[in-house]
Amino acid sequence: MHKRVGRMISILYRKNQVYLNTALKPLGLTASEVSVIIHLYKNEGASQEDVTTYLQIDKGATARVVQALIKKGFLRKESDPDDRRLNRLYPTESATALKPDIEILMRSWSDFLTGGLDSQAVDITYNTLEEMVKKVENAEFDDIRRKI
Amino acid sequence: MHKRVGRMISILYRKNQVYLNTALKPLGLTASEVSVIIHLYKNEGASQEDVTTYLQIDKGATARVVQALIKKGFLRKESDPDDRRLNRLYPTESATALKPDIEILMRSWSDFLTGGLDSQAVDITYNTLEEMVKKVENAEFDDIRRKI
Repeated sequence: MHKRVGRMISILYRKNQVYLNTALKPLGLTASEVSVIIHLYKNEGASQEDVTTYLQIDKGATARVVQALIKKGFLRKESDPDDRRLNRLYPTESATALKPDIEILMRSWSDFLTGGLDSQAVDITYNTLEEMVKKVENAEFDDIRRKI
Repeated sequence: MHKRVGRMISILYRKNQVYLNTALKPLGLTASEVSVIIHLYKNEGASQEDVTTYLQIDKGATARVVQALIKKGFLRKESDPDDRRLNRLYPTESATALKPDIEILMRSWSDFLTGGLDSQAVDITYNTLEEMVKKVENAEFDDIRRKI
């Protein structure tokens, strides 16, 4: 099999970004910012490094998003009392207040993507995507690149 | 079901970009450029608008990538003889010469993603992703955005 999985993933990614940027605008958030906020809802006090690892984005991108969120009043940064070099991130009350709205927006997207599809096929797809994510999270690109 | 399909797609997308940018460097191409070239291998003479629609990127991004590819000698632009306002794009010989290498790189990524996974589950996943792509390609975002 040799389907263009890359193209499918790209299209789904880009459309998800367009959808999120449109839907989040009234909340004062962007697609990149909401990913960080969602991670912090479940992991209050995560460090900037944790966020980078979880979202698999580069350090610079994380730093920019974190700065924007602090400026907008959605995040606060606190030094770890045991290790002053470590900054921990917490959602503010304004961010917490948006949680139900954000959940609805995220669910709307999943519902839209999966609406009318066979639910067993969707389960299999989500499990397969999870397996793929595990692989790429630990990928060393030199290993998977054939000699050309 | 309420899994974070958005996160999975984002991670697969970003890692694919990193892989492609690394693997394509020796060929003098970027991840965005290669998508356009692959489309033109199969659709010689496609217009810039066709490329935009197929890849579902914005017009500005397509224009930038097309310009870069022309400058690198991988594309040429010709006015349509029947409609001088319409520009048609063709891969050059240098681009055609890279086709086998590019195919190997794309296949390596698919093989890497699917290696060790149940082949029936992979088939179902690819079909489901195709269904999702069809949905998003025609999406009007106002329809899928619930009132919040």
